[in-house]
Amino acid sequence: MKVFRHRVRVRYAETDQMGVLHHSVYAVYFEEARVALMREMGLPYDDLERRGVLLPLTELKVRFLKPAYFEDVLDIDVEWSLKGIRLFLTYTVYRSGEKIAEGETVHVFTDRNLRPIRPPREIKGVFHRRM
Amino acid sequence: MKVFRHRVRVRYAETDQMGVLHHSVYAVYFEEARVALMREMGLPYDDLERRGVLLPLTELKVRFLKPAYFEDVLDIDVEWSLKGIRLFLTYTVYRSGEKIAEGETVHVFTDRNLRPIRPPREIKGVFHRRM
Amino acid sequence: MKVFRHRVRVRYAETDQMGVLHHSVYAVYFEEARVALMREMGLPYDDLERRGVLLPLTELKVRFLKPAYFEDVLDIDVEWSLKGIRLFLTYTVYRSGEKIAEGETVHVFTDRNLRPIRPPREIKGVFHRRM
Amino acid sequence: MKVFRHRVRVRYAETDQMGVLHHSVYAVYFEEARVALMREMGLPYDDLERRGVLLPLTELKVRFLKPAYFEDVLDIDVEWSLKGIRLFLTYTVYRSGEKIAEGETVHVFTDRNLRPIRPPREIKGVFHRRM
Repeated sequence: MKVFRHRVRVRYAETDQMGVLHHSVYAVYFEEARVALMREMGLPYDDLERRGVLLPLTELKVRFLKPAYFEDVLDIDVEWSLKGIRLFLTYTVYRSGEKIAEGETVHVFTDRNLRPIRPPREIKGVFHRRM
Repeated sequence: MKVFRHRVRVRYAETDQMGVLHHSVYAVYFEEARVALMREMGLPYDDLERRGVLLPLTELKVRFLKPAYFEDVLDIDVEWSLKGIRLFLTYTVYRSGEKIAEGETVHVFTDRNLRPIRPPREIKGVFHRRM
Repeated sequence: MKVFRHRVRVRYAETDQMGVLHHSVYAVYFEEARVALMREMGLPYDDLERRGVLLPLTELKVRFLKPAYFEDVLDIDVEWSLKGIRLFLTYTVYRSGEKIAEGETVHVFTDRNLRPIRPPREIKGVFHRRM
Repeated sequence: MKVFRHRVRVRYAETDQMGVLHHSVYAVYFEEARVALMREMGLPYDDLERRGVLLPLTELKVRFLKPAYFEDVLDIDVEWSLKGIRLFLTYTVYRSGEKIAEGETVHVFTDRNLRPIRPPREIKGVFHRRM
């Protein structure tokens, strides 16, 4: 419950000369999964921003278990919980059912000037809802 | 004359599994060289943006002559000319004196809403000046 | 004929502080479209590389007609032609049917050491075939 | 002691539409600082790779304290310790002396096929040495 799955495919530009997906790209995939989740929940992140509510990160963690390769199709499972003005998300990355990485991001709701704010009521409703 | 030289070093993250600098990164290097040029000319691009003047691209061209590699130190020579509301820049990329790539960008001056505007007088002064 | 359509969605990480898709990312989208085209044609680029055939760029051109924005869904139409050891591709980028950018890449077939080679016969067969 | 300082400048392409340095880029800066550190210590990472020794990440952590902006000059302090086959690095990011982010990476020494290996003796010598 409260899990959302998003699929990505590793781009050539995202590999490095080690022949694997560069480690910095996982954060980009997590973001894409998070954006897809919010779209799916009826709270698109671009709408949120237009209303003046931003969700910058305060923390990022990634554990790399197996390398990912060019053209790999990866499934990213996202779970989330909202506590006060903070949003906690965890990500698990699978390739053909095998877990290859996991991560976390912590976000704070802010206004356009990046000052922390309480999340608007309807946002709280969405994040406390289950998928 | 009217040439500015900027130096970059190829990052690991910018390589791909072909073992070379990914072709999409040249545009990022050109931009870094352009920003350094404007800073040097006393017209920092961040100041320009704060005044509501943006310089989006309308064209990008790159010719790749030799591959670049991780840890390569590259010199980028920039030349420019201003014609009406358009700014034309050309870039030549050298490694140890050997030309390995060249490119061009065309820019148009716009306001914050990306509507074309005439460049402010002092900007014209700067771009018509020689280094 | 000889047109392949590929769809991408603009990521948050791909925007810049101008509020638009950064111009360097178009080359990454072109590459993703090219890789999808080759997969579709039964000649996956990763297979080609495993066989020791690489397809580095010798030229890149992009014309930017309208900005693209976060969450935009873009259709990229790819056309191609093979002439000798060179592969020519053109890309047209649409948002909701409106053309917003176009580009070209030129590639040369090489071995693993980036030395030009004649494309293997079956590769020629694929690129001369129509979709 | 055992601290190395590396300086970077925030590129335009690295900002996002929030108007700040995108969070995924910190990992790229950490890598650039790490590569500069190894070059400085007389153990360039490209040499290491040529000898068949790779240093992939097993963990990445970043804490974001203040946003960074286009054209910001950032100092990254790196500390390191080697324990068995693992290399631990911590990074502190300063702007004008104010700490704005901190992070950690954990690496394992591997061969070209990404299989863990004991670090060669001279590598151990370097990482146990102080700057």
